[in-house]
Amino acid sequence: MMTNTLSTSIQTLQNYVNGRWIDSTTTQWLEVENPSTGEVIGSVPISTAAEASDAIDAAHQAFQQWREVPATTRVQPLFELTQKLKAHEESIARLVSLENGKSLPDARAEVKRAVENCEVACGMPVLQQGDTLIGAASGIDGQVLRLPRGVYTMIAPFNFPAMVPFWFLPYALATGNTYVVKPSERVPLTMSYLAQLIADSDLPPGVFNLVNGSVDVATAFMDNPKTAGVSFVGTSRVAALVAQRCAANNKRFQAMGGAKNHLVVMPDAQLDQVIRNMITSCYGCAGQRCMASSAVVAVGDDTYRRVCAAFTEASKQVKVGDPLNPALANESMLMGPVISAKAKQFILGMIEQGIAEGATLAHDGRNAKVIGDHRGHFIGPVVFTDVKPGMAIHKTEIFGPVAIILKARSFDEAVNIINEHQYGNGASIYTQSGYWARRFKLEAQCGMIGINVGIPAPVAPLPFGGMKSSQFSAVKTQGRSTIHFFTEEKIVTERFWAGDE
Amino acid sequence: MMTNTLSTSIQTLQNYVNGRWIDSTTTQWLEVENPSTGEVIGSVPISTAAEASDAIDAAHQAFQQWREVPATTRVQPLFELTQKLKAHEESIARLVSLENGKSLPDARAEVKRAVENCEVACGMPVLQQGDTLIGAASGIDGQVLRLPRGVYTMIAPFNFPAMVPFWFLPYALATGNTYVVKPSERVPLTMSYLAQLIADSDLPPGVFNLVNGSVDVATAFMDNPKTAGVSFVGTSRVAALVAQRCAANNKRFQAMGGAKNHLVVMPDAQLDQVIRNMITSCYGCAGQRCMASSAVVAVGDDTYRRVCAAFTEASKQVKVGDPLNPALANESMLMGPVISAKAKQFILGMIEQGIAEGATLAHDGRNAKVIGDHRGHFIGPVVFTDVKPGMAIHKTEIFGPVAIILKARSFDEAVNIINEHQYGNGASIYTQSGYWARRFKLEAQCGMIGINVGIPAPVAPLPFGGMKSSQFSAVKTQGRSTIHFFTEEKIVTERFWAGDE
Amino acid sequence: MMTNTLSTSIQTLQNYVNGRWIDSTTTQWLEVENPSTGEVIGSVPISTAAEASDAIDAAHQAFQQWREVPATTRVQPLFELTQKLKAHEESIARLVSLENGKSLPDARAEVKRAVENCEVACGMPVLQQGDTLIGAASGIDGQVLRLPRGVYTMIAPFNFPAMVPFWFLPYALATGNTYVVKPSERVPLTMSYLAQLIADSDLPPGVFNLVNGSVDVATAFMDNPKTAGVSFVGTSRVAALVAQRCAANNKRFQAMGGAKNHLVVMPDAQLDQVIRNMITSCYGCAGQRCMASSAVVAVGDDTYRRVCAAFTEASKQVKVGDPLNPALANESMLMGPVISAKAKQFILGMIEQGIAEGATLAHDGRNAKVIGDHRGHFIGPVVFTDVKPGMAIHKTEIFGPVAIILKARSFDEAVNIINEHQYGNGASIYTQSGYWARRFKLEAQCGMIGINVGIPAPVAPLPFGGMKSSQFSAVKTQGRSTIHFFTEEKIVTERFWAGDE
Amino acid sequence: MMTNTLSTSIQTLQNYVNGRWIDSTTTQWLEVENPSTGEVIGSVPISTAAEASDAIDAAHQAFQQWREVPATTRVQPLFELTQKLKAHEESIARLVSLENGKSLPDARAEVKRAVENCEVACGMPVLQQGDTLIGAASGIDGQVLRLPRGVYTMIAPFNFPAMVPFWFLPYALATGNTYVVKPSERVPLTMSYLAQLIADSDLPPGVFNLVNGSVDVATAFMDNPKTAGVSFVGTSRVAALVAQRCAANNKRFQAMGGAKNHLVVMPDAQLDQVIRNMITSCYGCAGQRCMASSAVVAVGDDTYRRVCAAFTEASKQVKVGDPLNPALANESMLMGPVISAKAKQFILGMIEQGIAEGATLAHDGRNAKVIGDHRGHFIGPVVFTDVKPGMAIHKTEIFGPVAIILKARSFDEAVNIINEHQYGNGASIYTQSGYWARRFKLEAQCGMIGINVGIPAPVAPLPFGGMKSSQFSAVKTQGRSTIHFFTEEKIVTERFWAGDE
Repeated sequence: MMTNTLSTSIQTLQNYVNGRWIDSTTTQWLEVENPSTGEVIGSVPISTAAEASDAIDAAHQAFQQWREVPATTRVQPLFELTQKLKAHEESIARLVSLENGKSLPDARAEVKRAVENCEVACGMPVLQQGDTLIGAASGIDGQVLRLPRGVYTMIAPFNFPAMVPFWFLPYALATGNTYVVKPSERVPLTMSYLAQLIADSDLPPGVFNLVNGSVDVATAFMDNPKTAGVSFVGTSRVAALVAQRCAANNKRFQAMGGAKNHLVVMPDAQLDQVIRNMITSCYGCAGQRCMASSAVVAVGDDTYRRVCAAFTEASKQVKVGDPLNPALANESMLMGPVISAKAKQFILGMIEQGIAEGATLAHDGRNAKVIGDHRGHFIGPVVFTDVKPGMAIHKTEIFGPVAIILKARSFDEAVNIINEHQYGNGASIYTQSGYWARRFKLEAQCGMIGINVGIPAPVAPLPFGGMKSSQFSAVKTQGRSTIHFFTEEKIVTERFWAGDE
Repeated sequence: MMTNTLSTSIQTLQNYVNGRWIDSTTTQWLEVENPSTGEVIGSVPISTAAEASDAIDAAHQAFQQWREVPATTRVQPLFELTQKLKAHEESIARLVSLENGKSLPDARAEVKRAVENCEVACGMPVLQQGDTLIGAASGIDGQVLRLPRGVYTMIAPFNFPAMVPFWFLPYALATGNTYVVKPSERVPLTMSYLAQLIADSDLPPGVFNLVNGSVDVATAFMDNPKTAGVSFVGTSRVAALVAQRCAANNKRFQAMGGAKNHLVVMPDAQLDQVIRNMITSCYGCAGQRCMASSAVVAVGDDTYRRVCAAFTEASKQVKVGDPLNPALANESMLMGPVISAKAKQFILGMIEQGIAEGATLAHDGRNAKVIGDHRGHFIGPVVFTDVKPGMAIHKTEIFGPVAIILKARSFDEAVNIINEHQYGNGASIYTQSGYWARRFKLEAQCGMIGINVGIPAPVAPLPFGGMKSSQFSAVKTQGRSTIHFFTEEKIVTERFWAGDE
Repeated sequence: MMTNTLSTSIQTLQNYVNGRWIDSTTTQWLEVENPSTGEVIGSVPISTAAEASDAIDAAHQAFQQWREVPATTRVQPLFELTQKLKAHEESIARLVSLENGKSLPDARAEVKRAVENCEVACGMPVLQQGDTLIGAASGIDGQVLRLPRGVYTMIAPFNFPAMVPFWFLPYALATGNTYVVKPSERVPLTMSYLAQLIADSDLPPGVFNLVNGSVDVATAFMDNPKTAGVSFVGTSRVAALVAQRCAANNKRFQAMGGAKNHLVVMPDAQLDQVIRNMITSCYGCAGQRCMASSAVVAVGDDTYRRVCAAFTEASKQVKVGDPLNPALANESMLMGPVISAKAKQFILGMIEQGIAEGATLAHDGRNAKVIGDHRGHFIGPVVFTDVKPGMAIHKTEIFGPVAIILKARSFDEAVNIINEHQYGNGASIYTQSGYWARRFKLEAQCGMIGINVGIPAPVAPLPFGGMKSSQFSAVKTQGRSTIHFFTEEKIVTERFWAGDE
Repeated sequence: MMTNTLSTSIQTLQNYVNGRWIDSTTTQWLEVENPSTGEVIGSVPISTAAEASDAIDAAHQAFQQWREVPATTRVQPLFELTQKLKAHEESIARLVSLENGKSLPDARAEVKRAVENCEVACGMPVLQQGDTLIGAASGIDGQVLRLPRGVYTMIAPFNFPAMVPFWFLPYALATGNTYVVKPSERVPLTMSYLAQLIADSDLPPGVFNLVNGSVDVATAFMDNPKTAGVSFVGTSRVAALVAQRCAANNKRFQAMGGAKNHLVVMPDAQLDQVIRNMITSCYGCAGQRCMASSAVVAVGDDTYRRVCAAFTEASKQVKVGDPLNPALANESMLMGPVISAKAKQFILGMIEQGIAEGATLAHDGRNAKVIGDHRGHFIGPVVFTDVKPGMAIHKTEIFGPVAIILKARSFDEAVNIINEHQYGNGASIYTQSGYWARRFKLEAQCGMIGINVGIPAPVAPLPFGGMKSSQFSAVKTQGRSTIHFFTEEKIVTERFWAGDE
């Protein structure tokens, strides 16, 4: 069904259930838009709860065999998929750019991280092993088995159409569970493409399923008695609802919400090396990532002055345009549009509010020059200085290319600004000093910490996840941590009495 | 305040907050009853939400220093406590018998398990270690830190006044968190005694706190913004509420609910060795434990007949009386009262229902001879045969000395009976065969599996926890698993640029 | 250089050093023989110590960069190699059959295990992670880093030309070490073929090297100051020398020696299912594997009688012939030749000795019908009964298709026969009983235990290795255990003092 | 037998074998000297090989039961011993001071580390657990068991009479092995005292044994077929012999040798804070510890000048005298004697050689003022500057209070000095910079790395061990690593066939 070439015609999406592509029976369809041009590029079904239920049934049925497949056999399709994803990297990246609007380098990095999670999941035959205790009591032994649990489901966000589902699904499959994913209805093309690669990787029918849709599908995931768990990435408001509903239904959940990540710049930071790093972090994916570090905290008057000047200047160099415009192929720092007209409207509103609150608009990207086609939802880099904790532009996750710069008198004050914020996803510090680095690791109340790293997103062999309102769940994703989400620890206490010899 | 001798006078309980015993300011008090005699032995304050809040504040304050204490120093008080618990084992066991009514051997076994959990928690300086990844990217390293999170709280049940709190609190303290425990208001004396031992173990003030009370205190644990997690052991109905409320408040929770554990007897089981084992499991603690295996499933007609006969006969040998009656000190199988008149009433009602449903009352312990003092809430062993899945006496956790015997035509049918039940705490099989043992481990949908073991409660170096409605939470307790509940995985991505040499 | 077709011409082998195939400068060459036909199929250089030294230098040079490659990047060539090995499975298997003489199913199984080890090594970015201890002392943290160590080397045996090197090399490369392998000079073609696949997998030059040769090369591995470790698989006599020499030179070593594996048959074993299993174990690879279970111990008179009869009868069904003879492609149990005329001579001598010692020659395969070409080193299945512990045919590893059957009066006697033997590689028991299975696991002094499994060779995600004279080294190979051989634990104790803010 | 008071009379030592103190039958006895006064304080038997063999037999006999004791029961004596060691800390410390000559603070620190190792070993019921792999193949599971191996032995050095044996023995006992220790014949009193505490801790007879003696006992440990492993701490020359002999006998060994640890001072180090740290490292235990950092490398001319001046000045402040002289009880930096007249002679010879080689004797402690009794083997602090790599005083482990200061032009040169040295035990760097710290961790070829820490000896929850000639063995001691030395990984592959239901 899928092809490697991105046709200019409108693609009508199907669901993938029980090993087959099927047409949705829904009457409700949504147009998929290219945010760089406003053109319609696809049509996605808003599938019904019944369709979600069918997919869950298929996954539940497939689970009965899949759970019994030996561990080393179970990862064979993932080894295959890993190769396929690498071979198709450029096609996937272009599709991500097309429907999400992010630059090609950003899209390629996203695909690479998806592959990396697949690769880590391939190690499950060792990682999933349980424990043995010889001599729990006299003549009695103990075992811990880490067994698959059933049907896991995923409700995906729009900002990383390729990567975010791969934070979960390779681990689910490798541990012996089956899966149903619902991509964001705003960027569903990528997952359809990926689904075909998965389908081609020798997974038995029903082990992996894709249902396009919206709230009804998501609700089915949380309420259907046959699902064992739900992963969600989106806003904190919805994450809280997901957590609560899953808890009531006694399902496992990983619900990841919003973020407002701080970059602390200490006086000893090497500013020339730091600024480029910060620019990538603030404006990559047009600021629409949960690891974007859009709140800069400079420690001390002098540092603050130097950061404001250098960062504002560097922000001006960022180019804006359609990432698939061949003329822009060699731009080193290109920023695409935000995801939709509605998103742009929200961001513009936040900028107005920042001005009204008294922050200084050091650089105004609202009317930035767009290179090439102007129809997309473009906003250029925006820099606010003189921002104070508690302003709306500090409290809110703007999810757009709006950087704010705050001043702190000391390290302690900088950490305090972070710790009093509702979100606790990531935070970074720039310093040459091992002392401040250590204190920052221990004291900043965020799940992911960067030391001289602008985007402190851990690689796939390490866990990924935030604190406070950024994460509703005990268990983080990626690497070893996923085992605790995707397996059931069954504890065996065993003795045998002698019979006849 | 506490003494080793159990005075006959009524003990008025206090709270232990911030290193000091303090009188509650509540106006609401409850009488603590000796269930073997009906005598009042204590008076427990139903503390106010404000008092709970004070304790949480103290714990939160203490956390700021406790978290920074080195790991090997942090376990010193636990090493001390371990020795103290061993030295006081008999006193604690007698106190448990006094207020809970269980036999002294059962009470001693309970204390031993509490000690064992303490001992495992002493190993935290190794267990809590995080991970390092050299070469997350070129010149960039990753670290996973497992750090304490803050104030943890516990809402304890009546059936194991000494053991259940120790499933959690030693691990919480060893990992660097601080603690507030609310014992069951029906059996609060034991925890007060234990609190004094903890207090004597050189813990800084505020690290451990005890607040007597009921729903208001429990609610404060779930709602106070300063608490990081809640452990609950009780009914599934309340466990679901705890889970939901904690999820909404973004707190970690371990909520353990009800159980109905099955003992499957295969035709090849060595019956003479098995029966004594089953009796201990069914009638220990008067059937009031979440690991009691009160539903026997015999596979095949012949097995069924033999099990019914032998088990009913053995049930008749169980003695009933006050466990602290010195005249009964040498009884090998002595059963005490159930916890309260209300509990007794419920159990009698269930027996009536069993009769009404058509089960055969093979042994009727309702008017069993009580040795000595008759005033307690005694019920003798009750055996129902001809029980069918779906009968109320099969579906309900009776939490009393009522055994039911079902017949299955095959192993598959036996497992099916288990898997269709709402609860999934524990299940055991008696067989000589490695084949049936393996299939049972993998197929019985319960968190804890016994092979020729009547009470499949894992020892403390292994995890403890159920499935389905028996457990609302991903993370089990005891051993290594507790780390995932009591620590925050913080992931660090770190690079340094060269400065001047 | 290599091609997928096995040419009938004689192949002249080269060495692969620093990313290039080079001709050996040695004056000493050996002919490689097809043991099924006696035809010469290759010519292998017996490289000089200087050539080995050059390869070690290349590996040492390459190590300086390879160690710094990020963990996830380092496994990319292994992911590629995994795919290539799968694609070339049949060619490799045929090459193994050609030079080693084992049946194609045996050869395919060997290649699959090689692949499996590669796959497990791909998980190294998680498995190699070190540890962190926050709070080793006040303000002081600890780290454990698991770092690569340098140049590792391998001295390979003739019996598994494809698999044995892959017990080590994928792990060495994945952990960041570099490698030099010396295949057995009797079966060097397979490793040359594999080397080309490795060469095609994007490893930097010098990371993997192949030197054909004999004792001089092996000695260079042990003595060169630039090598960090030596893996050896062969006889116990040489293993002891390797261990001693490496210890004196302070190098790590894994030296695996001989074996004589016992199969204990208990009276309750299901004999019909067992016999086929035993036949595969005894005669697969013509008995030339360290996991062959050639010593059967039947417990009890009746079991002994039944095992002797059934096993002897089944032995008669084994076909003998050239495994690459197309006419034999569909034989379900085909046995090829032993490796050489000399090996055949040794085996025939052992058979003579067995007869002289008074064992009963229940089936004499010495003149077994060879289907097709008769020129190879064929011996048919040989069965001795009435064998007593201490006979030479029991004490010696015959490494040929000679099965011996002993009788034990009890389980204890059977275990005792095993435990008094000099070797302790593997041992299996056939029983339905969980009780005997458990005791066997704990009491049989062998590194690898089978329960109703004829060849107790663990899969790659688990460790592999023996006890007693079967293994000279603390650390086993495969899976997680390899980390302890291939990495250096470096322990860091770290503090920073505050400087200026 | 032992008492808490240190009598002034001469103590005649016994052996402790199979649960009883017994007199040695040897004819060879050695006098134990107080190195601070030269007085004879004890008489130690140089036991015969036969006596060592008896102890090994006892341990081997005891192993048969001890191995079957459940894991949680096995650690009970260690919990007890931990308490006893704490209670006796001061007595042990005084005994260490008496026979070894180190200061009381040093002796107390030593005892604390012994306790800490005991505490970590108490966690063995979790740490020793093996692994389970459900689905090794279809219907087949795998297990890894970590089982005790038999009799372990220890050959102890003179410099840490209390601590070094505890690097091994608690782990050996906790994992289920039995033990024979041979203390240094120069400082045997401490181990006798400790043996009594162990004896009082409810270990079954034969589980722990003590044999006083010298080479004959050590040789018996290496050659007796009943021993499973040998731990040795001493010189590299003997370590190599131990390694080689154990390898030949196929025994596990941990052989730790000499050291010459470097302290690198970078220009950004905060010198005032650093110097005190360095003084403790160089002169603690009179320089007789394998973690002493006696070679200072200052980076850059200015740093070199400042370090030479400040360190020499600080060295002059070190007091010299009998550590048990009550008049010196409050000295903050007191140095006792070296262990013997012979050791003093060797050190004086090295100083002469340093002068002859052209190093500058910046501070000459040879005639340092000794406070109080002068009869002991005292040498005051000695500082050499202008030392070049390759001088004998740099190449040799002097094992006395002789500090040498070298200059390096750069970080790279400093690391190079370390890496070209024959030893690789520990190394430290003083810097404020995270960059140099990271590079030092990765590049300095030593097993233990300190960052702003003078004595980089890891705490007990982390491994301990060196590289190059400082360690002959793959496996390090302390913490989790000990499991790989003290247990056998047995790998089980298990299947069961269905029998009758």
